Amino acid sequence: MQTPSSLPEPSRPGEARFQIRVYYEDTDAAGVVFYANYLKYFERGRTEWLRQLGINQTELAANQNLMFVVRDVSARYLQPARLDDLLSIHSRITRLGAAVIHFEQSAYRDGQLLAESAVQICSVDSRSFAPVRLPDYLRSLFTKAQN
Amino acid sequence: MQTPSSLPEPSRPGEARFQIRVYYEDTDAAGVVFYANYLKYFERGRTEWLRQLGINQTELAANQNLMFVVRDVSARYLQPARLDDLLSIHSRITRLGAAVIHFEQSAYRDGQLLAESAVQICSVDSRSFAPVRLPDYLRSLFTKAQN
Amino acid sequence: MQTPSSLPEPSRPGEARFQIRVYYEDTDAAGVVFYANYLKYFERGRTEWLRQLGINQTELAANQNLMFVVRDVSARYLQPARLDDLLSIHSRITRLGAAVIHFEQSAYRDGQLLAESAVQICSVDSRSFAPVRLPDYLRSLFTKAQN
Amino acid sequence: MQTPSSLPEPSRPGEARFQIRVYYEDTDAAGVVFYANYLKYFERGRTEWLRQLGINQTELAANQNLMFVVRDVSARYLQPARLDDLLSIHSRITRLGAAVIHFEQSAYRDGQLLAESAVQICSVDSRSFAPVRLPDYLRSLFTKAQN
Repeated sequence: MQTPSSLPEPSRPGEARFQIRVYYEDTDAAGVVFYANYLKYFERGRTEWLRQLGINQTELAANQNLMFVVRDVSARYLQPARLDDLLSIHSRITRLGAAVIHFEQSAYRDGQLLAESAVQICSVDSRSFAPVRLPDYLRSLFTKAQN
Repeated sequence: MQTPSSLPEPSRPGEARFQIRVYYEDTDAAGVVFYANYLKYFERGRTEWLRQLGINQTELAANQNLMFVVRDVSARYLQPARLDDLLSIHSRITRLGAAVIHFEQSAYRDGQLLAESAVQICSVDSRSFAPVRLPDYLRSLFTKAQN
Repeated sequence: MQTPSSLPEPSRPGEARFQIRVYYEDTDAAGVVFYANYLKYFERGRTEWLRQLGINQTELAANQNLMFVVRDVSARYLQPARLDDLLSIHSRITRLGAAVIHFEQSAYRDGQLLAESAVQICSVDSRSFAPVRLPDYLRSLFTKAQN
Repeated sequence: MQTPSSLPEPSRPGEARFQIRVYYEDTDAAGVVFYANYLKYFERGRTEWLRQLGINQTELAANQNLMFVVRDVSARYLQPARLDDLLSIHSRITRLGAAVIHFEQSAYRDGQLLAESAVQICSVDSRSFAPVRLPDYLRSLFTKAQN
């Protein structure tokens, strides 16, 4: 079931990578990673991408009442991941709106694409969940991260 | 935060409904249901819909090596659900392919739409995960359930 | 693997019961319910037991800054639960301290004991997580529920 | 809420360490890590400990029909972990039975103990779940790992 070759995954400009190990907690009785858990993996990928940019979501909420919430997600499942697999999560911004960040993310194992996702994240007020414009310094950070 | 009115959700032909209570396990530090957990709710909805049709997935795998896997999912989040909420999950088939079933599913609270999803389920061989045509008796059951 | 008989589970004074269906999300690649998920089941059991007593945890936190947190848990696993199983969660108080409630909980399938747990819940201030004495009306409710 | 000092955690002979980052998926509406999720963390700790010893559980099941299941667990919660925390999971064997391995595990943040656990793992036949004696090479590996 594993891909025979171990070709490196294609790299794109502005793409962040993060490795995730599959544990029992991630799998289901079909012997593979449960489909909803890829959304956890993709969120970990976005969180680590933010951390690399120097953004800590806990501080963002505490100091600026700013939070990121998922507004829209789509995912396509091509090959199952299994217990003990080491996955590579790729994340990149494809579009920056006033309050919405568009991500493309994918999960690879040994160069084989297992799942891919498009996610829209909205910046909201952490108390009211109302959308708020991205602060300029974040927009500037995210724009730089795209290139 | 709750909708003031408790209007009944709109009903559609062939739509199955299933109630789900939100527990601590479903929520996250933002105080709302974690976005990936709606995919669990929608899967419970499809499972109970199958059960209502007399289909038990454990027996299907054991006796016919047939399993349903998610091939594609999209979800849109409109309003957050919170601890102790009672959600109503609506599920209906929108299209039946040779091996693929297209679902539309949504989550309501007191008549207010919180999230909606389109899901493609593929019938596969439970050993190889290769797609297999839906057996005629299942196709017939699903067709009847649409009306 | 299923128990041949369907004898009713033994009933005890003050014991609350709650039914839980096992879904794919609950299972792991060993084909059984993942061990940590019984703790979710037991929490659902305690939450529904509170609800039966007329206690809503969301309101308790909002109106009285009171929250229940788990301080100590032990669990013993006797038989695995599997996909599609219908479990019965039994919950009862064994001791009431000043701020701590001692629970015994167990999971049955068709009269067969699968797992059992002892849990200590502490009432805390929802802002500081500092232990607080159980308010008298709650103590009175819980005492009645024991008999 | 964070410990003021960053003293290193006490080290013990035969203790393995593994770092875990807290994500949104791990937290609940109380703003802290959900109590059952520590059991996931401790399982990751045991899995990585096995991997360090050269043991891959997928291969163990496939080649020798051997699997490890949790028979008994207890956990004590001292301080809550929160979003973005970096935890250190410590794991060590305290006793080796014929088929049962006794672990002590704990979760630290910046030298502060947050939770501790005692876990009994049983080696079983992966098809029947019946207990089986630990093979000699595993017993030998585990004995060495204790010192």
